[in-house]
Amino acid sequence: MDKTKILLAHGSGGRLTHDLISKYLVQSLSNPLLNKLDDAAVFKTGGNMAFTTDSYVVSPIFFPGGNIGKLAVCGTVNDLSVMGAVPKYLSLSFIIEEGLDITVLEEIIQSIAAAAKEAGVEIVTGDTKVVNIGKADKIFINTAGVGFIPEELDISGSNAQPGDAVIVSGTMGDHGIAIMAQREGLNFKMAVESDCAPLNGLIADMLKACPRIHVMRDPTRGGLATTLNEIAAQSQVGIELDEESIPVKPAVGGACDALGLDPLYVANEGKLIAILPEEFAPKVLSAMKAHPYGVDSAVIGRVTAKNPSRVSIRTPLGALRILDMQSGELLPRIC
Amino acid sequence: MDKTKILLAHGSGGRLTHDLISKYLVQSLSNPLLNKLDDAAVFKTGGNMAFTTDSYVVSPIFFPGGNIGKLAVCGTVNDLSVMGAVPKYLSLSFIIEEGLDITVLEEIIQSIAAAAKEAGVEIVTGDTKVVNIGKADKIFINTAGVGFIPEELDISGSNAQPGDAVIVSGTMGDHGIAIMAQREGLNFKMAVESDCAPLNGLIADMLKACPRIHVMRDPTRGGLATTLNEIAAQSQVGIELDEESIPVKPAVGGACDALGLDPLYVANEGKLIAILPEEFAPKVLSAMKAHPYGVDSAVIGRVTAKNPSRVSIRTPLGALRILDMQSGELLPRIC
Repeated sequence: MDKTKILLAHGSGGRLTHDLISKYLVQSLSNPLLNKLDDAAVFKTGGNMAFTTDSYVVSPIFFPGGNIGKLAVCGTVNDLSVMGAVPKYLSLSFIIEEGLDITVLEEIIQSIAAAAKEAGVEIVTGDTKVVNIGKADKIFINTAGVGFIPEELDISGSNAQPGDAVIVSGTMGDHGIAIMAQREGLNFKMAVESDCAPLNGLIADMLKACPRIHVMRDPTRGGLATTLNEIAAQSQVGIELDEESIPVKPAVGGACDALGLDPLYVANEGKLIAILPEEFAPKVLSAMKAHPYGVDSAVIGRVTAKNPSRVSIRTPLGALRILDMQSGELLPRIC
Repeated sequence: MDKTKILLAHGSGGRLTHDLISKYLVQSLSNPLLNKLDDAAVFKTGGNMAFTTDSYVVSPIFFPGGNIGKLAVCGTVNDLSVMGAVPKYLSLSFIIEEGLDITVLEEIIQSIAAAAKEAGVEIVTGDTKVVNIGKADKIFINTAGVGFIPEELDISGSNAQPGDAVIVSGTMGDHGIAIMAQREGLNFKMAVESDCAPLNGLIADMLKACPRIHVMRDPTRGGLATTLNEIAAQSQVGIELDEESIPVKPAVGGACDALGLDPLYVANEGKLIAILPEEFAPKVLSAMKAHPYGVDSAVIGRVTAKNPSRVSIRTPLGALRILDMQSGELLPRIC
């Protein structure tokens, strides 16, 4: 028995599962709720709660700027945060391919612990399954999360209103290009790192500046263009962007040119879109720029009453073209 | 493009993901929270909440008595219910292998909808990822769930007390043997079906009969023996079972003999263990026997102060042997 590898028996529910949980998980992620090891975590609640989930299948599992564990925490923290919730508790579930090095699992768990600490959330319940070699790809992670929403907030993809300003919190496409470069062994002149980060701190500062934010979303799979199309459809409004104002890192822009990609369709994991009454835009923008995860924030467009469900973009030459939802597969297993 | 198969683009976050969600998921699982398609579901809370998660990797994905979808709903409903919670909202996350027949996904979603309906829970948020052929095994499902716990209840694996009665809600090992038989193409004289079922209705009846239940657990992976060992360790008590009183279906007993398995280590997916003050045992037992999922309920042993952390079992000949936690892998991918 190779003690450095994950075995099927680590997923059996028996002694090895027990050892794995107590040795690696409880030790790194320790908190009173998790340590009880009951079938569910129990805690007091009150008011409005947000509840979300995501599974992570990113390949490779380690990439510049993060790994699948950090991603799994940040992704769920961000999905709660963009609803205006203060993220509080996460669940954590592994599907591991037999034969994974235990040191790899340990490193992932350390990243999970660090990301949870930064975001101020606790992992309170979890699960571990192991499948035979060749029946998964190293490790898949699911996180679900709950958070509590202050009474006065009402943030939803269906709340965009004509006249609202559209803001992004930084450069588009960093995560997707970092993954692609790592996966394909591409060497760009300037290295691109994933923007993977928990956005709850940034969002707290934004809500202090303006509690009347109508929509927040994190433009992950499908990128800015797809997420804005979803919002336009949910809110039955048009969205008009100004291409020159959308921040894109030169290295990402160059990589996109080389790969034939449009950065507006490339995934982000540490960026958000905010849609809010135009009069609050300057105040929110300066709060965003003062936060480490929002220094490149910019107003990139506005919400219109005409062309409901449609996103259009004004090019530097003044032409207006339609920015459709992504259709085929652009970048598989990006998150 | 083969429109009958799941494609990588179904997991891209773009148009095909959108179509998959709106055509299959929202239609079958429709409810006001899910239909909003926001990044998280938002709802009112209050009091104590339970929160749990499980990933399901069962192989084969269809088996006598259920499929991976029904299992994913029942498993999470049961993990909440054994904590005394009334299960309320579930998340649902798919990891699908490219090439899966869409009709298979549809059938699984229909089972999810049916099981959710029976259990009285709503699927309120979710996620879909697709990985390349050969990087997963057809479909893996994660569910997380939340439920609310009535104030007066305090149920936990650490609450077993010397003198308590140990009850099981029916025959042991049905799920594991049903999976094994299907997987290995075994033909037993009597067919064995998985016991996969939501137990919240049964548990509600039990709590009406006795709100002072100390411990409830569902003996899934690792079976009765492993779950009781966990409880004995959490509560720092001994548990002594009477072998003859543990219900096992003749077909399951026969299959276990043929396969060299002990039914006390084989997984269940529709059974529970309850540990409660002995004086309430008769009342709880009769409430259990009156419920369709509890007809074979039985008192199988008692909690002792001596031999803390140890589970022992008295054989029909009167000998007392130790029933250890499962060590190696018995039945991989049973749930």
